[in-house]
Amino acid sequence: MKALILLATIVLMGSGSFAQDGDSLMIRKMYDLALDGGHTYQDLKYLCKEIGPRLSGSVGAAKAVAWTKRLMEDYGFDTVYLQEVTVPHWERGENAIARLLDRKVRIAISAAALGGSIATPPNGITANLVEVKSFEELRMLGAERVRGKIVFFNRPMNRKSISTLAAYRGVSALRSQGAIEAAKLGAVAVIVRSLTTVSDDHPHTGAVRYSDVVPKIPAAAISTRGADLLSEKIASNKDLQLYFKQNCRQLSDAKSFNVIGEIKGKRRPDEIITIGAHLDSWDLGEGAHDDGAGVVQSVEVLRIFKALGYKPDHTIRVVLFMNEENGNRGGQMYAEIAEKLKEKHIFAIEADGGGFTPRGFSVEGNASFVDYMQSNWADLLSPYGLHQFEEGEGGTDIGPLKRVTPNVILIGFQPDNQRYFDIHHSANDVFENVNRRELELGAASMAALIYLIDSDSR
Amino acid sequence: MKALILLATIVLMGSGSFAQDGDSLMIRKMYDLALDGGHTYQDLKYLCKEIGPRLSGSVGAAKAVAWTKRLMEDYGFDTVYLQEVTVPHWERGENAIARLLDRKVRIAISAAALGGSIATPPNGITANLVEVKSFEELRMLGAERVRGKIVFFNRPMNRKSISTLAAYRGVSALRSQGAIEAAKLGAVAVIVRSLTTVSDDHPHTGAVRYSDVVPKIPAAAISTRGADLLSEKIASNKDLQLYFKQNCRQLSDAKSFNVIGEIKGKRRPDEIITIGAHLDSWDLGEGAHDDGAGVVQSVEVLRIFKALGYKPDHTIRVVLFMNEENGNRGGQMYAEIAEKLKEKHIFAIEADGGGFTPRGFSVEGNASFVDYMQSNWADLLSPYGLHQFEEGEGGTDIGPLKRVTPNVILIGFQPDNQRYFDIHHSANDVFENVNRRELELGAASMAALIYLIDSDSR
Repeated sequence: MKALILLATIVLMGSGSFAQDGDSLMIRKMYDLALDGGHTYQDLKYLCKEIGPRLSGSVGAAKAVAWTKRLMEDYGFDTVYLQEVTVPHWERGENAIARLLDRKVRIAISAAALGGSIATPPNGITANLVEVKSFEELRMLGAERVRGKIVFFNRPMNRKSISTLAAYRGVSALRSQGAIEAAKLGAVAVIVRSLTTVSDDHPHTGAVRYSDVVPKIPAAAISTRGADLLSEKIASNKDLQLYFKQNCRQLSDAKSFNVIGEIKGKRRPDEIITIGAHLDSWDLGEGAHDDGAGVVQSVEVLRIFKALGYKPDHTIRVVLFMNEENGNRGGQMYAEIAEKLKEKHIFAIEADGGGFTPRGFSVEGNASFVDYMQSNWADLLSPYGLHQFEEGEGGTDIGPLKRVTPNVILIGFQPDNQRYFDIHHSANDVFENVNRRELELGAASMAALIYLIDSDSR
Repeated sequence: MKALILLATIVLMGSGSFAQDGDSLMIRKMYDLALDGGHTYQDLKYLCKEIGPRLSGSVGAAKAVAWTKRLMEDYGFDTVYLQEVTVPHWERGENAIARLLDRKVRIAISAAALGGSIATPPNGITANLVEVKSFEELRMLGAERVRGKIVFFNRPMNRKSISTLAAYRGVSALRSQGAIEAAKLGAVAVIVRSLTTVSDDHPHTGAVRYSDVVPKIPAAAISTRGADLLSEKIASNKDLQLYFKQNCRQLSDAKSFNVIGEIKGKRRPDEIITIGAHLDSWDLGEGAHDDGAGVVQSVEVLRIFKALGYKPDHTIRVVLFMNEENGNRGGQMYAEIAEKLKEKHIFAIEADGGGFTPRGFSVEGNASFVDYMQSNWADLLSPYGLHQFEEGEGGTDIGPLKRVTPNVILIGFQPDNQRYFDIHHSANDVFENVNRRELELGAASMAALIYLIDSDSR
């Protein structure tokens, strides 16, 4: 890849502004196609309203596989195919019930099972609570004070963090690992404050993990308002109890698919640039921002390339990954097959940050490529509001690819993330909360980047 | 100012990274205060929900004057006072009625009087239509084909423009000047397609102008869906008529006020930095983004300065201008008094682009100051998502200041504008459509800029 970059630098320096003018025109056309008559918004509407939530193994997921395959076939991509993957199959069942019992007063708290959680006993659990802000605090309490109780993880996301993504990462282990840590000390269940900075009544779900060496205990998220109320009540009544009931269940693993569409490269067909997003989504909303937006934007990139008659040098492959939310089996399978087929992956770009106004791109563990983008492409991309070129995450789905093809450069598309956790994994993640222009600009931004990568070595 | 900049450059170069570290810490504290326990969101909620729309001369405007004055007094600013200004007073009356008459079919079209428009006769107007996309097209038709008709200006905003503001400016003359141009050719009324890229049923109002030398004719906006329907019907039936009725009225000019609060400068109290936003708002919504956001953000800047114990060198003055929407009398009065008092204005910053994620600042007609910001402050501001430093508009309210104090540097705060015209001047401009974090970040961004300007010459 270094050779490609070096070569590109020389070529660009040699050909001067002529190449830049051509690139500039091509990028402008891509934005025109996305913003005026683009397909992302109507495609997302279909995915959200006609199919809806699509958790791995669900009917929605199967419909989404069939529909996106047909969509890419209708758009006339060179090849469209399915890649089989076995996925976990978990069902929420009825809505979780949580009720605090404060002496004689009962108050309902808005709750939702965490994805993958076991059910409570059929009649629910009633127990006292211990409220903690961290695993350290929990371990300090020790088994004696935790045993038989419901552990309430109540650490708010850090509002001061400019990146809400960083704030999310700062607390997400409480949700994903909390049941393991609490069970080690004998807790009977776990309740987690929803991972959002908004104060409202929506519980935000997300995956919880279990360990083979400690008992599995039920885990649920409660709304931030519910968490504040619970905390307040605990402070004034140490004997406060919580009644908590949910009847979610883990079914047998199911057969599902990654959905793949590609345009064959003209000069280097064996070199692959992957554009990825995940097709599965949590069941509380419609998976509009997470990650319906990324799905329709990724497909739109190839649609735009075709509409412009742009024939890429490299093979550009859209991969709609199954099961990012609760297992990442799709991402793992994609990497496994890439390894088996000895595919040459040069770049992989993931869109999994919502359909918000584009800000830039993050590059995983490759500062010199960040510098390269900044030096060569920033002037072409900044007129479109793309200013952030930085080291950072590629994405969950494309992550495994790095292990099997270490030279691949992983890039995460970065839209503005201020609103993301208002809706993330909640009933608010619906089509109505996606802005058309912001969604369209994201597709064009990804198309522009992929065009620059593809055409850079000419 | 050049001397100040030169001096600042030398000082910064001399003191090196020490000054930058101090600045960086101070800016971080400002963001902390805005994002955690900031007042903008609660203040905006009060302005929108307890006061609501506040068009010049209305009861809402008077309440907003009294409340913001009290708010700034409660925050303990050094001086809080009112600056009297005489404003136009226009009332919408009942909702406009527009109905197309297509042979025997009548279809209602969602309409709203343009601000300042005259009423129709009490029984309304029924007339044939001429549809045009521009004044050129209208003039080509000539008086013969326009006389006695309703002119329908149906030019969509350019969706391809990355800046929606630029797209708005490309068509806004049809709304503001359309009644004059149509009346010159004998039209009886004007209907304008709403200035938004969204397809929906909300009419977007805005000011219409009249001339003393041509007759005044009634003018209204119709929703974009209504405009598309009307256009389609006209195409299939040249004899299509529109029934149109509105009973808005212009009352006598009213007494109102700019609301001003300031912190006195410590070392240069006679040099003034103005932070401005407009307090009046259109009557269809709550003036949440336009410009309640700018109002509460401007006030928040001084609240943050006080909370941090930051004592500025220069006098920092918050001005909540009256009557930006339909006359700009507040902006003119502020400049007039500045001239009369021979005030020394060095900077004026206006926030009138909505409460969206901050992007940067535009500087009016001063490329060297843009370069200065880029060279000296970009590194301090880019961690907060502020990347755009460019030549552009200052703002309507602060504009007149340039005429009386030519050395003043005018700066427009630039939030992301992708969603702005979805809600602009419509019933959608309500508190619920403002995102808390985006609003708070805007206040901090303005505080950071004003801090850098103020402390630069130390």
